Parts: sequence; C-alpha cells; structure tokens
Amino acid sequence: MTYCVAITMDAGLIFCSDSRTNAGVDQVSTYSKMFHYKVSGEREFVVLSAGNLATTQAVVSQIKRDIRDDASTSLKNLPDISEAASYLGEISRQEQEKHSGGGGPNAGASFEASFILGGQVEGDKPRLAMVYPQGNHITTSKDTPYLQIGESKYGKPILDRILSRTTSLEDASRCALVSMDSTMRSNLTVGPPIELAVYATDSFNLTRFRFDDDDEYLRELKKAWDQYLIEAFDRLPPLQWSDAQSPDESA
Amino acid sequence: MTYCVAITMDAGLIFCSDSRTNAGVDQVSTYSKMFHYKVSGEREFVVLSAGNLATTQAVVSQIKRDIRDDASTSLKNLPDISEAASYLGEISRQEQEKHSGGGGPNAGASFEASFILGGQVEGDKPRLAMVYPQGNHITTSKDTPYLQIGESKYGKPILDRILSRTTSLEDASRCALVSMDSTMRSNLTVGPPIELAVYATDSFNLTRFRFDDDDEYLRELKKAWDQYLIEAFDRLPPLQWSDAQSPDESA
Repeated sequence: MTYCVAITMDAGLIFCSDSRTNAGVDQVSTYSKMFHYKVSGEREFVVLSAGNLATTQAVVSQIKRDIRDDASTSLKNLPDISEAASYLGEISRQEQEKHSGGGGPNAGASFEASFILGGQVEGDKPRLAMVYPQGNHITTSKDTPYLQIGESKYGKPILDRILSRTTSLEDASRCALVSMDSTMRSNLTVGPPIELAVYATDSFNLTRFRFDDDDEYLRELKKAWDQYLIEAFDRLPPLQWSDAQSPDESA
Repeated sequence: MTYCVAITMDAGLIFCSDSRTNAGVDQVSTYSKMFHYKVSGEREFVVLSAGNLATTQAVVSQIKRDIRDDASTSLKNLPDISEAASYLGEISRQEQEKHSGGGGPNAGASFEASFILGGQVEGDKPRLAMVYPQGNHITTSKDTPYLQIGESKYGKPILDRILSRTTSLEDASRCALVSMDSTMRSNLTVGPPIELAVYATDSFNLTRFRFDDDDEYLRELKKAWDQYLIEAFDRLPPLQWSDAQSPDESA
C-alpha cells in the first residue's frame, strides 16, 4: 500500500509520500514514490505514485526518456499542469493496456496506478492534479486544497481541519507529516522513510526532506502530537449524565 | 453506510452508532442501529448492526422472537457472550443464504451484514464480540479494547490514541463521540442521530443517550475539539528548514 498527499496553497505546494511497497505481507520493499523533474526553462514538476510498481516505474521512466530524447511531447514543452497530467495519464493507460489485454495468464490481474502531478510552469500558478488509473485527472479546489492517493482515509480528518488556501508552507508541511503519522499507525503497509518536498510559489526550486524510521524530528513530532491530543481530549466538555434518557423498555 | 464502535474497559462497555442508511445516494433514511435486550435474570445485551438493512432487521427480529417464544436457544439462556455471538452469527448466515442462493435474479447481490454484540451475563465479565457476515466472530484484546463495524478508518486514529483498559466510562463515551464526529465529516452516508449506550460493570442497567443533528452538547464537543486540535497543531515543533537536503539533481 501507499500513502501520498499533496497540498496547494497561495504560498506554494507540499508533497509527502511514504516509501513502503508490498506484494503480500511477506514481500515488503522500500521504494521512493516521489519523483522530481526540473527541466529547461522555468518549469518544475513533482510526481507521486501509488499502485502497481511495474506500472509506476514504467511511467516514471518514460517521462524521463521523453525529456532526455527531446520528444515532441514531454514535460519540457507541455504548456501547463493540466496538459502534463493528460500526457502522464495517457502513458499510464498505455502501460496498463500492454499487460492487461486478452484472456491470457494476466486476465483479471490489476496493473492500475494513480499519480499526483504538481508543479509550476512559468507564467502559470503552481498547480496539482491527480491522475486516475483510467488516465483522466482532477485538480484541487478552493475548498479542498489537497489531493491524496493510496490509503487516504486515516489521514484525512486532520487535513480537513487544518488546511486552507492561506496555510503557510511550514504549517502544511507539519500537517502532511501528522496525516502521514496517523496513517502509518493504522496501516502497516505504509511506512518510512517519509519524503517531503516543499515548493514555494515562483521559486522554481524544490526543497526536499527525508525522514528515516529513527529520524529525531519525526519522533519528536509524533510524541508531541500524541501528548497534545490527549491534553486536548482531556479538556473536552464532559458528557452530562443527567442528559441520559430513561432506560428503554426491555425486549 | 454505517459507523458503529464499541469499547470494553474494566469499568464497563460503551456502544455508539450512527443512524443513516442509504441505498444509493438518493435513497437515504434514518434507522437506529442499536438494539437493547434486557432479559430475565441478570443479563443485558446490546447489538449494533451494519450492512444490508433487510438482513439486520430480520436478525434483530429473530433474536426478539426467540426471547418472546422461550425458544430452546435464545439470549435468555445462552451461557455467555461468545455463545450468544455464535447464535447471532448463525441467524445472520441463514438469513443471507435465504436470498443469495442459486443463479436467479439475486445472483451477485450482497446481503451481508456485520454485528457487534456486547453485554454481561451474571457470573461473567462484560464482553464484546464482532460477528462477521460469515457468522464467525472475534473479541477484543487487552491491547485493542474496541471493535468497529462499517466505515471504520476515519475514526480509528483517535481510538488508538486514547483508549486502554483503564479508561473511564466518561472518557470512553467522549472518545466514541469524537471518533464518530471525524467519520461523519468525511463520509456523508454516516449521519445523526447518534446513539450512545453506557453499561457499567455489574450494573445490569443500560444508560442511553441520543444526539440529534442540532444537539447542543454534540455541537459544543465538535467546536471544542476543532479548536483544541488547531491549538495542539500550532504547538507542534516547527520543521527546521536547515534540515533540508540539497536539491536533488534534475532529470
């Protein structure tokens, strides 16, 4: 499994991903799911991936090859994030089709993969898109400034509570890490190292962090969040037992 | 969809359930998913239900009928919660089989339902069991003092952080309500009224609460939790930008 989240704000973009892949519970490996493409001119792209590892690796390689070979369509020349997402989606769909067609030994197997693509192209704002296995994509909105792929449920409530368009890059970074922590606690197949990338609007420069299992900051963050949550919980208004209803009739 | 959670502690048991049922997004109704059976002698049972509404209603009615008719096996005479869970599971499996057998018009439809059964039988401790659609069941453990059915992921992190065997009934009640609140925010098909039942060990008496959409306590709890979480978040140790790695090489 995988958990990746990306956040868009006026101040820029945040990307966060775990690095655990598994095929069954006894085949667990560590692979980065964050890919950075800095291409000629003022263009910066980050891709987060989830799903079939063979598919995601093929897609990521193809994107790189197209840049290197000056292909007619590549991240070098696509006009905006939306067109770049369509391009990525088309590669992903083709890659899945290669293996899943026909009724042969692969029938019924899933080669699906999802992606988050984000970045900035000169002249446009920083933007995010989530690319579905089907190749189409959605973007963020004013009210929903983040996108998730993989195991998204455990880490969603904190994002909904904290994030808005005006959140700072620093706050959004911590929020992504807290969301990741809640997910790792609840799903064993989401695990460290955790990668975090911060992109400030118009900087055309990506700041990257990597937190290993024993990272001191991550441990401190987890411990503080645990403690503060318990303190917050203790301050909640008590339930008034006097509000209880009369015991209902027995069966 | 549904969200139900039940918690077991030294002090007793907590049950919490939402009341929204839906078949598609345009067929939404309100049904209680919490059923209380107080039977002759010192025996107290609560059932929480999730899944196919026809199945859960049939199961709940059958349990009631067996008590009324003094059936050879009923909650009146089953020796403990584990045997009661097996009994409930058998009724549930039979009910599902009635409709899902053969290749007729029902082929492929799901009549599955899950249940949490909890309570106390004189001479035994209060206990909880979760009954799978297949009819078998599991119980809580020292390290995992709660059981969930339905949409369980959004509300799980707070349970993991707060609950233990020594949690008070009051704390566990609030924890269940906070867990329910996180779930309702993220899944539209989980909704009020919220029912809460509190059973104190050896009391053989159930205290019930019902929180409607506009309930003042629930609104106060939500508002306080929102505010305290944001305060907790603001106190988290800041990410040191100096820990950033040098920008990685471009593609």
